[in-house]
Amino acid sequence: MAAAAKPENLSLVVLLKMHSVGICSSDVHYWQHGRIGDFVVKKPMVLGHEASGTLAKVGSMEKHLKPGDCVAFEPGAPRETDEFCKIGRYNLSPSIFFCATPPDDGNLSQFYMHNADFCYKLPDSVTFEEGALIEPLSVGIYAFSLGNNVLVCGAGPIGLVTLLVAKAMGAAQVVVTDLSAARLSKAKEVGADFTIQVAKESPQEIAWKVEGLLGCKPDVTIECTGAESSIQTGIYATCSGGTVVIVGLGSEMTTIPLVHATSREVYIKGVFPYCNTWRMAISMLASKTLNVKPLVTHRFPLEKVVEAFETSKQGLGLKVMIKCDPNDQNP
Amino acid sequence: MAAAAKPENLSLVVLLKMHSVGICSSDVHYWQHGRIGDFVVKKPMVLGHEASGTLAKVGSMEKHLKPGDCVAFEPGAPRETDEFCKIGRYNLSPSIFFCATPPDDGNLSQFYMHNADFCYKLPDSVTFEEGALIEPLSVGIYAFSLGNNVLVCGAGPIGLVTLLVAKAMGAAQVVVTDLSAARLSKAKEVGADFTIQVAKESPQEIAWKVEGLLGCKPDVTIECTGAESSIQTGIYATCSGGTVVIVGLGSEMTTIPLVHATSREVYIKGVFPYCNTWRMAISMLASKTLNVKPLVTHRFPLEKVVEAFETSKQGLGLKVMIKCDPNDQNP
Amino acid sequence: MAAAAKPENLSLVVLLKMHSVGICSSDVHYWQHGRIGDFVVKKPMVLGHEASGTLAKVGSMEKHLKPGDCVAFEPGAPRETDEFCKIGRYNLSPSIFFCATPPDDGNLSQFYMHNADFCYKLPDSVTFEEGALIEPLSVGIYAFSLGNNVLVCGAGPIGLVTLLVAKAMGAAQVVVTDLSAARLSKAKEVGADFTIQVAKESPQEIAWKVEGLLGCKPDVTIECTGAESSIQTGIYATCSGGTVVIVGLGSEMTTIPLVHATSREVYIKGVFPYCNTWRMAISMLASKTLNVKPLVTHRFPLEKVVEAFETSKQGLGLKVMIKCDPNDQNP
Amino acid sequence: MAAAAKPENLSLVVLLKMHSVGICSSDVHYWQHGRIGDFVVKKPMVLGHEASGTLAKVGSMEKHLKPGDCVAFEPGAPRETDEFCKIGRYNLSPSIFFCATPPDDGNLSQFYMHNADFCYKLPDSVTFEEGALIEPLSVGIYAFSLGNNVLVCGAGPIGLVTLLVAKAMGAAQVVVTDLSAARLSKAKEVGADFTIQVAKESPQEIAWKVEGLLGCKPDVTIECTGAESSIQTGIYATCSGGTVVIVGLGSEMTTIPLVHATSREVYIKGVFPYCNTWRMAISMLASKTLNVKPLVTHRFPLEKVVEAFETSKQGLGLKVMIKCDPNDQNP
Repeated sequence: MAAAAKPENLSLVVLLKMHSVGICSSDVHYWQHGRIGDFVVKKPMVLGHEASGTLAKVGSMEKHLKPGDCVAFEPGAPRETDEFCKIGRYNLSPSIFFCATPPDDGNLSQFYMHNADFCYKLPDSVTFEEGALIEPLSVGIYAFSLGNNVLVCGAGPIGLVTLLVAKAMGAAQVVVTDLSAARLSKAKEVGADFTIQVAKESPQEIAWKVEGLLGCKPDVTIECTGAESSIQTGIYATCSGGTVVIVGLGSEMTTIPLVHATSREVYIKGVFPYCNTWRMAISMLASKTLNVKPLVTHRFPLEKVVEAFETSKQGLGLKVMIKCDPNDQNP
Repeated sequence: MAAAAKPENLSLVVLLKMHSVGICSSDVHYWQHGRIGDFVVKKPMVLGHEASGTLAKVGSMEKHLKPGDCVAFEPGAPRETDEFCKIGRYNLSPSIFFCATPPDDGNLSQFYMHNADFCYKLPDSVTFEEGALIEPLSVGIYAFSLGNNVLVCGAGPIGLVTLLVAKAMGAAQVVVTDLSAARLSKAKEVGADFTIQVAKESPQEIAWKVEGLLGCKPDVTIECTGAESSIQTGIYATCSGGTVVIVGLGSEMTTIPLVHATSREVYIKGVFPYCNTWRMAISMLASKTLNVKPLVTHRFPLEKVVEAFETSKQGLGLKVMIKCDPNDQNP
Repeated sequence: MAAAAKPENLSLVVLLKMHSVGICSSDVHYWQHGRIGDFVVKKPMVLGHEASGTLAKVGSMEKHLKPGDCVAFEPGAPRETDEFCKIGRYNLSPSIFFCATPPDDGNLSQFYMHNADFCYKLPDSVTFEEGALIEPLSVGIYAFSLGNNVLVCGAGPIGLVTLLVAKAMGAAQVVVTDLSAARLSKAKEVGADFTIQVAKESPQEIAWKVEGLLGCKPDVTIECTGAESSIQTGIYATCSGGTVVIVGLGSEMTTIPLVHATSREVYIKGVFPYCNTWRMAISMLASKTLNVKPLVTHRFPLEKVVEAFETSKQGLGLKVMIKCDPNDQNP
Repeated sequence: MAAAAKPENLSLVVLLKMHSVGICSSDVHYWQHGRIGDFVVKKPMVLGHEASGTLAKVGSMEKHLKPGDCVAFEPGAPRETDEFCKIGRYNLSPSIFFCATPPDDGNLSQFYMHNADFCYKLPDSVTFEEGALIEPLSVGIYAFSLGNNVLVCGAGPIGLVTLLVAKAMGAAQVVVTDLSAARLSKAKEVGADFTIQVAKESPQEIAWKVEGLLGCKPDVTIECTGAESSIQTGIYATCSGGTVVIVGLGSEMTTIPLVHATSREVYIKGVFPYCNTWRMAISMLASKTLNVKPLVTHRFPLEKVVEAFETSKQGLGLKVMIKCDPNDQNP
């Protein structure tokens, strides 16, 4: 008797003509240092993972996408349907393909191939640059934990999208901390209720300032710096029973007041980097629930990519965008 | 410039030599009526979806499985990585392949091909029949909702595995209801603390009996009959703030005391049929946390399959097992 | 040897000078019919439970409140620390005191006594009327279930606050249904992305309209009418794996497509009426995260209370507010 | 016009005749060192908080309890209905009364008064000693996090009850680690599937051993030692997406591999000490779902209390029980 059935699940690949790619600090880090933690660049690697473009070719069996569609895409696409994928946490799949993480190439190029299931069609009302910014925005959406009063540590691009998401999701008050007055000023501009410029205060002192400004301890702290003192601040500042979400990655070992955290049931929840966020991000951008456009401060054509990286490396501005299509340099 | 990367996710197919296949009431229903709800058998269809066997062939790229492995497998395997798969609820994927659900063939055969990602290696301590019983057991595991005092409505195979799971997961007291004294006797045998033979009582009256036996309202009711009166009983019986899990499917429209449910915040949670349960089931069977062996009451070789279906149709015994390998009729 | 310790928990009572009390449809219903379901008015009962006022007297042991404080208060305050209170679901405590629910008196009066633990100080930026509107707003906050695309059934006061909460909590698109064009026009005014005026369409037809407008099925439906056809619409409309929140209470028995709900895992979650919402509501009002002021369409002094009830009974306007303090008729 | 209503919530106090009180390591610590962290004994304090007894007197308004009832009681009873109580996390209430935590007296005495709402009637099938052991058992129940494969760090009384709970709640495999072979032998006796005697291995080495024994990384680690190396082991050992529950309290600051935890989304969840566990514990004991009796290794009459504390201090045996009733020294 012959075999009875052939269930198959073939993830198809599509070819993209790239439009806009943002530079992330990790791109700069690989460029400068050739490694991040255990990820070491051993052969030439294409950078870039905050990206959008137009579909140039799709497979004959493709049902959801067609040539000409404008898409954003998740840089991480699982290579197999393992146990993590099955429970909806494909970001934890050890064999995941991830753009611009060695040994996987990124998409800072004119053309690029990607798993079709992880390409998302952009509606007309969403620009290519907004599409490219969905990657950092996704970090903010994924890190988001429902809170009425929120502390965001760090006012870099990730801190700012986290702030945007918290305000869009109904947070009544958000405090943002940073070392830089310029960054805090940008935070104010995009919606922070309060800012604290951190200098030499102890974590407890910052925590008291936070409570003083909010009138209570925050329900949720979202830590985007990776700095040990900032993580400690988050634990001291958060209300009993609340959550500290760890987004920023710092040095390998971190010293924290764990007895304090435990006796007040402050949970420590690391998130990495996002999972199931693209649809929500597109929907929020299309409905103007939040606005990521102010984050882009510089634009360079693809041929000036080194200049773009230099700008980003020097910490000028916030988000540097590279325009890959010589015929279309629009946002 | 060439395309930069080729992330692919190819789900491989394996060939199985079938060993044991249990008969489910849905198999009998398709055989007798040619349809269940909107699922209509339009061409000859192979039945069978509670199954286990040995791997006969695997693809050259297969990493996790090898020929000779004894496996159980999920009858439902998604055909594409859609939004439901991505959030870990692949059971809701509209295009899912599902054994013995028209138009997809089942596995009551000597050989059968299946998606490798949904085949699970059985440890030596788990028999093929236990492997086949993982399918109904999965319904019980998936329906399980943490409760100290539990009401299970129905003492058929699904009601009994639900009872087994509830006891294995620490439920202090489980009450089982059914129309049949014989089934309730089996329920007692496999661990029910109390049973109620339902006759002409109203749902409220059964609910009072349940509360009387437990000394309190159950935290969780798992409804495995699909009968309207039993669903109503579940709602009246469950404690305020508790959950009624709907497993049994009855007629299209159901009349329920929704105001009563709402004003006591009794949640109504339908589950269909399972998702992410095979690993846990194998682990529980291997560690003898629960025992499904008593559920098998009849065995027939593959050539006596009609007799097997007749036995199942007549409601004799509990679980009828078909032995597909003429050279190995062991459990 | 003497007893070793005296742990006590005395909930104190405070005296309030009432300022603003909104009329709820349940107040009108008790006035006209003398009962709602099993709650029967058997002796004269003071109506009113959407209220705010000023503290006139507090006990000598009171630590959190002082005379002169402006407060809003939860109409439901538990009378004992039972098992429901201990798990944070005091709204389900069977012996709860609830304003204007027989036999408990409400607060449509010049002075009123209430459990101090359930009085909440209003910041200066929140008016008394906003304080009184926290009660219906709480229904919306409590019913809220995180969703990007949301269907709200019903555009009365509860439907509208639910809409306000959904938009404030980041919902990208909200559709509101109602029978009345006037109510839907108000819904548009306060933020609905789409509205559907329901006439003679079947629940499935309305569900298709909803999907057509949103471009997908909503993640969450919040049913605020209690009408059977609307509840059915909610079940058909909601995406697989989504939630229908039941807020509206209709007739005792309701016929629903439960097989459809189960096979798509649409959960049915009744909420009643709120729990732990006042702090969040005050915080959202103080930070202007949402605006409930447009809901008040009529105001009457306490001595014209019958006229106020007539207005409300006739369905004129949306929220009728009664001003209890003859010396202060401000919002 | 008179005030309209008087909702009151008076928590009543009852008088108990004590029967059995277990000695906890915290009792020994206060006895020897006069402080634990910020809790300093400044005046003579009665020790004891693992206790059971008989009701000697109840108030005239008491509805649930009557003289002669055998009860166990939670040592922590909130003094006010604050925001933590309202959300069902009364254990976090800053003003909570807690037996034998300065300045609150414990119950190692012949008679003792306690908040009636936190006294729980014991069924006939549960002994007084089991009633006293509900306190440590509650730590295990509260720390429990659903897992199929579980690592328990520490084989003291708390580690052992955690093991008992994990097995009772369906964990297929539990590994227990400790420094002491004798304790691990007890762990084996009460149900551990595997044990690891820790000597000089690094946390990563222990983590590999755990994975080797289980055949996979555990879903959940419950850390009951407070030792930094053990906490690090828990983080390295737990599967991606899993949880490390912190029960043991060690030194104020702890160094952990937070980047590792974050990039694998291992959550760190401190619990302190329990909340809403007594009913479940009584129910599990009454139904023989688990057995805590083997934990009691020594018994002393109240007049030999110093000898009892010496025994406990020397680490002889596991749980030392003090019998407060000279006329009834039974378990």
